[in-house]
Amino acid sequence: MELKPVGIIHSPYKHTGHVPRVHDDAGAISTIEVFDEFATGLQDIEGFSHIVVIYWFHRSKGYHLLVKPPGEDSMRGLFATRSPHRPCPLGLTVAELVSRKDNNLIVKGLDATDGTPLLDIKPYLPEDYDPHSVRIGWLEGRRHRRSN
Amino acid sequence: MELKPVGIIHSPYKHTGHVPRVHDDAGAISTIEVFDEFATGLQDIEGFSHIVVIYWFHRSKGYHLLVKPPGEDSMRGLFATRSPHRPCPLGLTVAELVSRKDNNLIVKGLDATDGTPLLDIKPYLPEDYDPHSVRIGWLEGRRHRRSN
Repeated sequence: MELKPVGIIHSPYKHTGHVPRVHDDAGAISTIEVFDEFATGLQDIEGFSHIVVIYWFHRSKGYHLLVKPPGEDSMRGLFATRSPHRPCPLGLTVAELVSRKDNNLIVKGLDATDGTPLLDIKPYLPEDYDPHSVRIGWLEGRRHRRSN
Repeated sequence: MELKPVGIIHSPYKHTGHVPRVHDDAGAISTIEVFDEFATGLQDIEGFSHIVVIYWFHRSKGYHLLVKPPGEDSMRGLFATRSPHRPCPLGLTVAELVSRKDNNLIVKGLDATDGTPLLDIKPYLPEDYDPHSVRIGWLEGRRHRRSN
């Protein structure tokens, strides 16, 4: 299972420490450069207000199955976190598509570091269920802190 | 960029033709088997009502940058579709987590075929924006058909 990137992400986050945490304010503008050979695949993308961006956590080295998320006291199972250090280091963000200039997509809210390899772009479709009915486990505390 | 699966998906969809289309009713029950060596990483997952499942489109062979989605008359840019035939054949579904039995997750709404290699599981966090404000481009027609 070999992956080849289809583009590269240009971002104001030059180091992982600059990247905002999940569900903090992540309103910075980034540019997704899709390589020329794939640019034709961007047709129709402007019709979508949001896109799903899948990328390679290229700074990730190894992983632990239990991790202590930033600001938390307890260890959590890796798959119940968004840690970049994973067996398959795949990153995923739903970003707002601001505009397109040829093979470059200007997006808002993409929390990837500068130079991140782009693997895929998919159209974002809203989920069917009421967001208020979604349970978010150990992250509930963060939701409450956030809305206060 | 080499990926090794962390599990396998057992699904009632034995062939790709059985898989429901995007945003059709996809309420079937599947089982995600996480390999024993990664099971510790599932700790805390039961707290989440929905999970993001990332998998490998193992039946995908090659791709075209313009595709005609099922039931559509027009060609669309590949990145504006959810076609499984992509440069990086990565699949993505938000599924409802029904229950967990050891290293097996019983989920609802996972539209992957039987035997699909599992790459990653992430906790699902609801997006911040109003679903009704999201524009879904050429798929708008499907949303309208669906809600009528």
